[in-house]
Amino acid sequence: MDDAAPPRSMTAHVLDFLFEYQTLKIVNIGNKKIGLLNRCIQGIIVAYIIGYVIVYSKGYQHFSPYNSATTSKVKGVISTKNLTDDDFVENFRNKDDYRRIWDVSEIVIPPSEADAFFLTTNLIMTRQGRDVCFEDPSTPNVQCRGPSDCQKGRVDLLGNGVQTGKCVNTTEPFKLESVCEIDGWCPPEYDRGPLKDNKPLFAKVEDFTVLLKNYVEFSLFNLTRRNIRDSDTSKYLTSCNYDPVKDPACPVFRIGDILKFCGIDMSQIGSKGGVIRITINWDCNLDFSLDYCTPTYHFMRIDDPFAKVAKGWNFRYATAQGDNNRTQFKAYGITFRISTLARGGKFYMVNLAVNIGSGLGLLALATFVCDLVVLNCMKKKELYKRNKFRFVDPLEDPEALDDSSLDYGRIQ
Amino acid sequence: MDDAAPPRSMTAHVLDFLFEYQTLKIVNIGNKKIGLLNRCIQGIIVAYIIGYVIVYSKGYQHFSPYNSATTSKVKGVISTKNLTDDDFVENFRNKDDYRRIWDVSEIVIPPSEADAFFLTTNLIMTRQGRDVCFEDPSTPNVQCRGPSDCQKGRVDLLGNGVQTGKCVNTTEPFKLESVCEIDGWCPPEYDRGPLKDNKPLFAKVEDFTVLLKNYVEFSLFNLTRRNIRDSDTSKYLTSCNYDPVKDPACPVFRIGDILKFCGIDMSQIGSKGGVIRITINWDCNLDFSLDYCTPTYHFMRIDDPFAKVAKGWNFRYATAQGDNNRTQFKAYGITFRISTLARGGKFYMVNLAVNIGSGLGLLALATFVCDLVVLNCMKKKELYKRNKFRFVDPLEDPEALDDSSLDYGRIQ
Amino acid sequence: MDDAAPPRSMTAHVLDFLFEYQTLKIVNIGNKKIGLLNRCIQGIIVAYIIGYVIVYSKGYQHFSPYNSATTSKVKGVISTKNLTDDDFVENFRNKDDYRRIWDVSEIVIPPSEADAFFLTTNLIMTRQGRDVCFEDPSTPNVQCRGPSDCQKGRVDLLGNGVQTGKCVNTTEPFKLESVCEIDGWCPPEYDRGPLKDNKPLFAKVEDFTVLLKNYVEFSLFNLTRRNIRDSDTSKYLTSCNYDPVKDPACPVFRIGDILKFCGIDMSQIGSKGGVIRITINWDCNLDFSLDYCTPTYHFMRIDDPFAKVAKGWNFRYATAQGDNNRTQFKAYGITFRISTLARGGKFYMVNLAVNIGSGLGLLALATFVCDLVVLNCMKKKELYKRNKFRFVDPLEDPEALDDSSLDYGRIQ
Repeated sequence: MDDAAPPRSMTAHVLDFLFEYQTLKIVNIGNKKIGLLNRCIQGIIVAYIIGYVIVYSKGYQHFSPYNSATTSKVKGVISTKNLTDDDFVENFRNKDDYRRIWDVSEIVIPPSEADAFFLTTNLIMTRQGRDVCFEDPSTPNVQCRGPSDCQKGRVDLLGNGVQTGKCVNTTEPFKLESVCEIDGWCPPEYDRGPLKDNKPLFAKVEDFTVLLKNYVEFSLFNLTRRNIRDSDTSKYLTSCNYDPVKDPACPVFRIGDILKFCGIDMSQIGSKGGVIRITINWDCNLDFSLDYCTPTYHFMRIDDPFAKVAKGWNFRYATAQGDNNRTQFKAYGITFRISTLARGGKFYMVNLAVNIGSGLGLLALATFVCDLVVLNCMKKKELYKRNKFRFVDPLEDPEALDDSSLDYGRIQ
Repeated sequence: MDDAAPPRSMTAHVLDFLFEYQTLKIVNIGNKKIGLLNRCIQGIIVAYIIGYVIVYSKGYQHFSPYNSATTSKVKGVISTKNLTDDDFVENFRNKDDYRRIWDVSEIVIPPSEADAFFLTTNLIMTRQGRDVCFEDPSTPNVQCRGPSDCQKGRVDLLGNGVQTGKCVNTTEPFKLESVCEIDGWCPPEYDRGPLKDNKPLFAKVEDFTVLLKNYVEFSLFNLTRRNIRDSDTSKYLTSCNYDPVKDPACPVFRIGDILKFCGIDMSQIGSKGGVIRITINWDCNLDFSLDYCTPTYHFMRIDDPFAKVAKGWNFRYATAQGDNNRTQFKAYGITFRISTLARGGKFYMVNLAVNIGSGLGLLALATFVCDLVVLNCMKKKELYKRNKFRFVDPLEDPEALDDSSLDYGRIQ
Repeated sequence: MDDAAPPRSMTAHVLDFLFEYQTLKIVNIGNKKIGLLNRCIQGIIVAYIIGYVIVYSKGYQHFSPYNSATTSKVKGVISTKNLTDDDFVENFRNKDDYRRIWDVSEIVIPPSEADAFFLTTNLIMTRQGRDVCFEDPSTPNVQCRGPSDCQKGRVDLLGNGVQTGKCVNTTEPFKLESVCEIDGWCPPEYDRGPLKDNKPLFAKVEDFTVLLKNYVEFSLFNLTRRNIRDSDTSKYLTSCNYDPVKDPACPVFRIGDILKFCGIDMSQIGSKGGVIRITINWDCNLDFSLDYCTPTYHFMRIDDPFAKVAKGWNFRYATAQGDNNRTQFKAYGITFRISTLARGGKFYMVNLAVNIGSGLGLLALATFVCDLVVLNCMKKKELYKRNKFRFVDPLEDPEALDDSSLDYGRIQ
């Protein structure tokens, strides 16, 4: 009885609480089938926790956030001096402009990009001046029969200038027809070729090489790594060529090899250009020696090679000659985008404990499933229910059953 | 007794362990109030797990990491030939230089950027030569009364050159005053206008269109998608215009529309420039047909339109005419930054199991809360305590109570 | 007996289920040692949950995804007019070309980059024309004794053009020797200097300043912040200088200061260039005033300053003078890459509940460890086992023990 028991002090209660150990009452069910089912599910969960979460996903480590930067340096030179007139599409203008020696300054546009670089594979050059001339006949709605079809001052956004209101004839290499005259950069670009059969002008760009310098910083561990090994000599860097099997550590990549790794060749991508993703993957277990912390490279063409419209990648730029003349370039080519993925981890007790703890929690799944089976599907389910559950009816008199109202549950 | 029982082999122990099923002893409390509370909390947790974690957040799927790339192609042409002298701010130099036809090569600077593009909306051009001239009077501390105020060889980093030590007069369009002379690119840029009333020179850039080609690669599933549908024809791409309701699949965006989606118009952003974020959002359930895997577009101006200082976005570039002459451009404009967010998931049993398992763990919250109520706030708490807890006193003699020390707990 | 008991309706079963409260049967073990161990482990887990997960990692908040954009504006001017002939490496060509006033248009290349900028610190200029000339003697395998050593039409990718088949002598400043003649851009670049002792030409770039405008958008909360405070005046922005202690809010950074924060100076990085990462870190508790949501800046050189090969960062670009002449620039310099990390959180009940729930789950770790100790290492382990476990033998007759087969476990 409450009043009979000696009153216990607050301190005693606190100490009781402090030194108390509560564990769960377990009901052992001696049924081999359900036991086996239970162990199987538990086994799968433990295998998942240990095999996948702890070992494979390195659940015993903590991982650093990272920063990275990549710079690229392209080397190569192309000669197109031996192109004959027959190599060009018919009636092409200024063929001589295309017979040149081209070096990196003319092929890599812009000269420097962060985590990216662009190689020209095909090029259309147009010498233009501020003038009046016929509009590009491929512009919608510029065909005319007379001046009444052209509206002075009209600007067609898909065109190249402001209409003057005159109707004039095109000249070669365009198909001969009558189109509205424009005021703008003249003459309009002839958007074909320059070479026959969709041959890229700079097919030999596949012999170019690019040196990628990749830096990755694991900020949590205050550690910086780069993809060029300290042991690499200058001579090695000028002579080596990346190969996933023979020389996976060489940071110099032949463009043709990159295309091959993507499963394509220059004839498929050179004429219209494309987008290639280079992924530099660092997966570093920093519990081991830094010597094992080296990157792997992955290459993938990510534009659609089978696209029927808006295929490839091109852009226009111009070099001015004075105020009123320029050479306009339409450059088709491959834009390489470099991304760095890095994972650097070190052993960390807290993460190991949390993952084990969460894993133990998952074991409840096994009990949950087995309970469903035991309590619903087995012949002796009533026996199991009776032993698993204890029903407390609040309508009972608490005193009637047990007179130890304070030291409840104490075995006497 | 231990010595009486026949010794059991190790194998038997292992088998016992293997076929054992342990489940928790449950105390059922027949109180409707607490039962309802329990079910309510459990209901909320189950609703959260099923509704939010499993269904809404697709907890039954695993998601692929992704790579993306975006290229942009701007089309348009602007004529500023019909500007009158009155449109310019007073005394502006070289007004004729601003009356031209401008095309994409002059408006989009640089011509190609990775995942970004810039459109010039306002421009100040200054023809300069290597020479001596008065310093820009807005530079701090360059006003002078005589040569003694100017120090030969002094380089002010906010200025435009090296002081010669002379004190000279400014000319129009600058306010007439005496400033130190400099050796550098002359004359200094007059940083106003060019048009009156803060009108942007290229307000019509809002009629330009940009074609965005976005590629996303879900590397886990070895799957690449692009925002241009295979069914789109070349004609569709030249004529369509993105509209979130009428044509959400068109990859061609009118600049004026983008501004509208951001809640602004050209008069607010054109004069000083700004930064607009274009987000391309792929949310793909790859358990369904790829046809449903299409992107949505979101637009937001992210620079501060109400900034009082350092507002907008501009930069300077120059085109050289020989070694000693150049045209310096100060380009104000909108820099569009394109980012891709992608989520592509497929059904994955492990993730479903882990999420259900973690969910079951969360159910302990309900028991935790209800136990607090039951054991502390209810009238019959002593009854519940007595039934929930069993106290084991280690001072008891284990033999006294039960003689089955090996087959402990076996119901006999 | 089943058949004797009045049949209960489905509704009754559902109501029973709805109002039922099931809690776990707990075994209290009155052993102080194990109690203390239990409380210690629980204490560590609770401290981890509350201290680390809830408070430190703000487990009571939900965090917004974010977008960011950074624009940069460099200011400064450099004079190299006072360089004497003795400052240059021996025999250097065109020394006068290097004695100039240089401004931002010539130092920052390209003029505008997204989240990055480049400052030239050293520069080699070569005036070239399309011509024939001797190959750069540092190219592998170009030394010759006579025409038989040179192969007409051969293109060496590390060279500068197409071999003509002649063997010619080099001229100053190159070491005098015989090399194959090439057709290409002539003369080849002399890749040294220009200044003696590896002094960078633009060492004074360290006096330049850069204004970083950083915008971050927390999309979940529809909130945009920038690093320039609304209270900053134009005068403050032109005169302030970032200092982590004295003026941590100033968005204007002196380049020399940035180098200092990275632990380097211009003499270490200027000659060959390098890569510096600027991290702008927003850690915002949006439950408090936005005034506390300000960024911090971190600077780190991430290329390897001790690299023996492929050190630093340089690239080549050219400005054309007509079709057949150009000035080729080899620019060494510092490429600054700016990244934004942002965390903005607000109180969110669901996350708090989930974290507490997961935390309760982790408490099972304590029970797990203590059970291992109690059931295996303690003297009275058999007593504890007997009380913790209840063995149900399915071979027993369920009826024999208890005749309340429906109201199982009900205390009677």
